Amino acid sequence: MKSEKISEAVVRRLPVYLRYLNELQKREVSTVSSQELGQKLDLNPAQIRKDLAYFGDFGRKGIGYDVSYLIEKIRQILKLDQKINVALVGAGNLGHALSNYNAFLKDNMKIVAIFDSYSPKVGMKINNLVVQPMEELEKTVHEHGIRIGIITVPDFEAQNVANQLIASGIEAILNFAPTILKAPAHIRIHTADFTTDLQSLAYYLDNGKEDAAHDNNEVDG
Amino acid sequence: MKSEKISEAVVRRLPVYLRYLNELQKREVSTVSSQELGQKLDLNPAQIRKDLAYFGDFGRKGIGYDVSYLIEKIRQILKLDQKINVALVGAGNLGHALSNYNAFLKDNMKIVAIFDSYSPKVGMKINNLVVQPMEELEKTVHEHGIRIGIITVPDFEAQNVANQLIASGIEAILNFAPTILKAPAHIRIHTADFTTDLQSLAYYLDNGKEDAAHDNNEVDG
Repeated sequence: MKSEKISEAVVRRLPVYLRYLNELQKREVSTVSSQELGQKLDLNPAQIRKDLAYFGDFGRKGIGYDVSYLIEKIRQILKLDQKINVALVGAGNLGHALSNYNAFLKDNMKIVAIFDSYSPKVGMKINNLVVQPMEELEKTVHEHGIRIGIITVPDFEAQNVANQLIASGIEAILNFAPTILKAPAHIRIHTADFTTDLQSLAYYLDNGKEDAAHDNNEVDG
Repeated sequence: MKSEKISEAVVRRLPVYLRYLNELQKREVSTVSSQELGQKLDLNPAQIRKDLAYFGDFGRKGIGYDVSYLIEKIRQILKLDQKINVALVGAGNLGHALSNYNAFLKDNMKIVAIFDSYSPKVGMKINNLVVQPMEELEKTVHEHGIRIGIITVPDFEAQNVANQLIASGIEAILNFAPTILKAPAHIRIHTADFTTDLQSLAYYLDNGKEDAAHDNNEVDG
C-alpha cells in the first residue's frame, strides 16, 4: 500500500466502495471490474482505477479486483479494523435514529454514550444506553476512550456542544446541525446536512415538468 | 450563466456554498473571496473559482464575489426558486427527524406527505401531516405534484418503496436506507448514508493515539 497522503475526495469515496464490496461479498462474488463498480456507483471507471491504485497495482485486466482483498485494505486505510468509540450528543429523533443504525456494530465503530443537556431526557434508555447529562461528558470520554462525537442538537446549540466535545478530548466530529462549526485545525469536522443532498437532487429534476408560466424573456441578437 | 452541463461534483458543492453564503448574508457581509470560502469550507480556492465560473465571470480580484448575486444564481441553478414538493416514506425516528427540519421551508422544498406501510403508524400526526398508507401514494403524488421522494425505511424494504415511488411518478429519490437501490436511468437517486461520513472521519483520527500493540513487522533492505 502506498503511504502517500490520500485526498479527501478519495477518502470520502472509499466507504462507498466498501459498502458495495460488502454487498458483493455477501453474494459470494469474488472479483469485480472497475466498469462494474463505475456503473453501480455512478462514477467514471478511470477514476475508480486511480483511487484503487493507492492500494497497490493488483487490478488485473479482464479479471478485475479481488473483492476480499479490497475490503480488507479499505478497512485498514479507514481504520475500521480498529475499535473506535463514539459519543452522541442530542437525544432527539435524529439521535434516536442514528443510535438504531446497526451498521456501526459491524465496523467496530460504536456509539457507547449518549448525552443531552435537557434534564427530562437524562436517564432515558436508548438501545441499552442511558442518556447522560453534559456534566458527565469529559469523564465518560476519558473512561471509554471515545474519539468521535456526533452532534444531533439544534443549530443554535451546536457550536457550544462542539466546544465541549473538543475540550473533553474528542478528535473528530460528525455534525448534523445545519450550521458551520468552528474548531481548531487538528479537529476534523464533517457536516452531514441532508438538505445539501436534497438540494443537489433538485438540480436533476426534469425542467420540462415545471408548471410555472413560461417567462423566458431572452431576446435574440 | 453558462448553459453547459455542470458535473455532479460541482452540483454537490453548490448547496455547501449556498449554506455559507446564506450565513454571510445574515451577518450582512456583502462580498466574499474564494480564499475565505476555501478556508471556511475546506476546499481549494482555485477549485471554488472554477466552480463559480459556471455562473459568469463576475468575481473581482481583490474584492471577491457579490454574496446576494451568488445566492440568487445558485438558487436558480439548483431550482430552489421553484416550489418542489417532497414525499417521505417511513415514519420512524429518522422520518420524524427529517420532517422537523425546517430548512426545507426556507427553500420552497417541502415535505407535503408522509407514508408508512405499518398500519399502527397510519393516522399519526407529524408536523401537521397525517401519516398515510402506501395505498394512497400514487393518488397523493399526483394531487400534490410531488417530484422528490425520501426513503427512511429499513434496508430490506427500501427497494420495494423505491419501486412504488417511481411507479407513482416521482423523479428523484433521497435514500437513507443503507443499501444501493436499482432504478431506471431517468430517475436520480442519492444515497445519504451517514455511516460513510463517519467512516471517512475515522481516516483522519490521529494514528499516534492507537492503543493497539505495535506490530509493524516491516524489515529494512
